Amino acid sequence: MGTESDVYEFDWRSVCSIASGLDVLGDKWSLLIVRDLIVHGTRTYSEFRESPEHVASNILAARLRLLTSLGIIERTNPDGIARNNAYRLTPSGAALRPVLEALGKWAQANLKAYHSEMVDSV
Amino acid sequence: MGTESDVYEFDWRSVCSIASGLDVLGDKWSLLIVRDLIVHGTRTYSEFRESPEHVASNILAARLRLLTSLGIIERTNPDGIARNNAYRLTPSGAALRPVLEALGKWAQANLKAYHSEMVDSV
Repeated sequence: MGTESDVYEFDWRSVCSIASGLDVLGDKWSLLIVRDLIVHGTRTYSEFRESPEHVASNILAARLRLLTSLGIIERTNPDGIARNNAYRLTPSGAALRPVLEALGKWAQANLKAYHSEMVDSV
Repeated sequence: MGTESDVYEFDWRSVCSIASGLDVLGDKWSLLIVRDLIVHGTRTYSEFRESPEHVASNILAARLRLLTSLGIIERTNPDGIARNNAYRLTPSGAALRPVLEALGKWAQANLKAYHSEMVDSV
């Protein structure tokens, strides 16, 4: 609930908004966590770990911290029991839906030749 | 010109189109190269190197190979002189414009608090 103390210090590479978006989200996992929250209703650490891409535990923990620090997701703990920590999207995170949709649509139209089993996911 | 012989072998993480898009483009540089081609008319290796984000030479070379291998960009060499190699978008690469636009728009709306100098770039 916004109690993260480790606010990430970014070395923004330039003033370009696209570059800045990639400074934050330019990796193979961050947008998959957002996808899980938007598309699959994933909430808990163990549920994220069960996603088909098999994110490593240390990577998942780091990305959850990063996304929380930037206000893209927030941690909830309705009953005060640590193992019941969960995550949910903030408005900033929910606003990533058009990015996911554009990327998924592009992949479907342009990567099928390399990956014939691909299916829509938004 | 489609003469690249090193077609990348991807370990696609899942059948999800979003995950597959990130398998290809989920890094900090690939979409910046596409941005340079779409927005700035960048064509040559040395022009890419002059972009404000200062891509390292080995990373640039690797990403140009990757994007060429996947048919996102293609190499041109109008006069047959190697140092005049240039790159241009294929239709697949040009189709990434909506992804760049969505990402830049999201960054402008949601990262300004962390990076006040940010400007629109599409």
